[in-house]
Amino acid sequence: MARDARRSEAVFSERGFHDWLARRLGRPKHSLLPLGDDTAAVRVGGRRVALLTTDAFVEGTHFWKESPPRAVGAAVAAASLSDLAAKGGEPVGLLLDLLLPARVARAWPRNIVLGAEAEAARFGAHVIGGDTKQSPIRSVVGTMLGWGEASRLPARSGARPKDLLVTTGTVGRGGLAAARLRGGQRTTEAERHDLLRIQPRVREGSLLAKVAHAMIDTSDGIAEAGHLLSEASHCRLILRAESLPLEPGLRRPNRSEVALWDAAFYGGDYELLASVAPSSVPQLRRGLAALGTPLTVVGTVARGRGAYLEVNGRLQPLPHAGWDPFGSPLG
Amino acid sequence: MARDARRSEAVFSERGFHDWLARRLGRPKHSLLPLGDDTAAVRVGGRRVALLTTDAFVEGTHFWKESPPRAVGAAVAAASLSDLAAKGGEPVGLLLDLLLPARVARAWPRNIVLGAEAEAARFGAHVIGGDTKQSPIRSVVGTMLGWGEASRLPARSGARPKDLLVTTGTVGRGGLAAARLRGGQRTTEAERHDLLRIQPRVREGSLLAKVAHAMIDTSDGIAEAGHLLSEASHCRLILRAESLPLEPGLRRPNRSEVALWDAAFYGGDYELLASVAPSSVPQLRRGLAALGTPLTVVGTVARGRGAYLEVNGRLQPLPHAGWDPFGSPLG
Repeated sequence: MARDARRSEAVFSERGFHDWLARRLGRPKHSLLPLGDDTAAVRVGGRRVALLTTDAFVEGTHFWKESPPRAVGAAVAAASLSDLAAKGGEPVGLLLDLLLPARVARAWPRNIVLGAEAEAARFGAHVIGGDTKQSPIRSVVGTMLGWGEASRLPARSGARPKDLLVTTGTVGRGGLAAARLRGGQRTTEAERHDLLRIQPRVREGSLLAKVAHAMIDTSDGIAEAGHLLSEASHCRLILRAESLPLEPGLRRPNRSEVALWDAAFYGGDYELLASVAPSSVPQLRRGLAALGTPLTVVGTVARGRGAYLEVNGRLQPLPHAGWDPFGSPLG
Repeated sequence: MARDARRSEAVFSERGFHDWLARRLGRPKHSLLPLGDDTAAVRVGGRRVALLTTDAFVEGTHFWKESPPRAVGAAVAAASLSDLAAKGGEPVGLLLDLLLPARVARAWPRNIVLGAEAEAARFGAHVIGGDTKQSPIRSVVGTMLGWGEASRLPARSGARPKDLLVTTGTVGRGGLAAARLRGGQRTTEAERHDLLRIQPRVREGSLLAKVAHAMIDTSDGIAEAGHLLSEASHCRLILRAESLPLEPGLRRPNRSEVALWDAAFYGGDYELLASVAPSSVPQLRRGLAALGTPLTVVGTVARGRGAYLEVNGRLQPLPHAGWDPFGSPLG
């Protein structure tokens, strides 16, 4: 009986968990942003807020035994930097939790720290603390503190009808990398390593946050980011297929590449997707060009609900998929 | 050859890692405290500092499959609250990273959050963010943000000759619990559960931080805490065996209980050990009595080096042991 009861117990899903959190804890008393946004935001005094965000990387899910530990450390730092960037944050300090097997070579955790420190230092932040514990599965958790401004804190909920949707960089880099692994193709070490190459858009986020009505990073793909913005903002969101700045390998989808092309929407690109007034675009484009980063208008916000893809003038619903952060790209 | 090379590679140890961190990263640019102290401390503006601390709990090491998830969540929050208390911090917000197996009942992570939220809320803090990822081994990482004051930030390095050492509560609770498990004795669920019962001394820490020259929590036992204070402060530290406020089960050590008595020094008690001027003691005792918490003078600080135990007037070196936070109490 106990076994049957257990079997019938509802199983965890990330979406269900987030819905439950929103119902149960909602906007936490001390944060200016709801649970589930890219970062938590705690008022420090005056207009300043402390931004906090955390990301866990697990062996076998997000990295592999043979992954270079410096690259893993850098990716952990970069993932948190990307979340911070989505709120226009200035990175300050990183904590690292290292879960390590009983007899691990000391070079491994040292290189994790060095990789994370080097990546954080590129943006003025440093490793300031952490913890080490024993676990049969290696994992690295990074938690980043940054400073933001209460008046320039683009939540996911601020998108407005008539806004334009803009994205930094390209679409599909993470999706391509994940699809290659997921497809069971023989992958090279370099291709697996691609999943760890995260380019956080910190300086771009700082410029975008000054004018963006809403912003999110595309760590779960541009499609999932679109859904989340649409839901939080109670607006209809339309991505134009023709406008997406696809990665070169994705430009001309032929029959054998259709799966990869779809995957492009659901890979961890770690770009920024922002909802802005049309009048802001020229100025933003100039600002980002000075950083060497392309900014592309990829869609529009309208009254209504749901996230759509416009292909040859026809709207089709964007399916919910995302690079399930709770799933393995190898699974 | 590759295998031999691997075998000869130096193996990770927590102490070696901390020494390396101190050499390599030292006091990080943005923190007022060195890596390895209970918390990181980042200047916010004026006298205020942001305190950040993190603790990881791993299934099989710190909790068990049958451990009530609310108790695990509460322990994760309490461990971070205890570190914060050692710097006199005011708790604000907690982030939780949940590493979960692929098909976990949704009640488990929910109860982790509810347990952590309830414990944090006892001290005015709330769950403000986090992350969920897939892992074959359940783990929960808690990261706490709190506010402190730059002028009242008792580092581990501030103990001075002629100070008195004071501790809150009793000595040996965690040691007893761990020793029972380690000894391979048949333990009841309640006894295993004892390891998760952490009483963070947040209000006590706030009072102690006003006058303490140095402070640390005894999450790795009072002996390890003594060693860490002594090393950081470049002082000799002497604990008086007769003065230790031992747990009842430890009061009259007989032959069969000697192992347990020793273990008392090395268990995770999560009390506070502070180095204070003798003139501060009466006022502190009154303040803590008002909170219902005993404060006991357990030793002295002198010129010199090393941590010692005074038994019947004779000094003997305190061995380095600690409840190895990198080891399992079951191992």
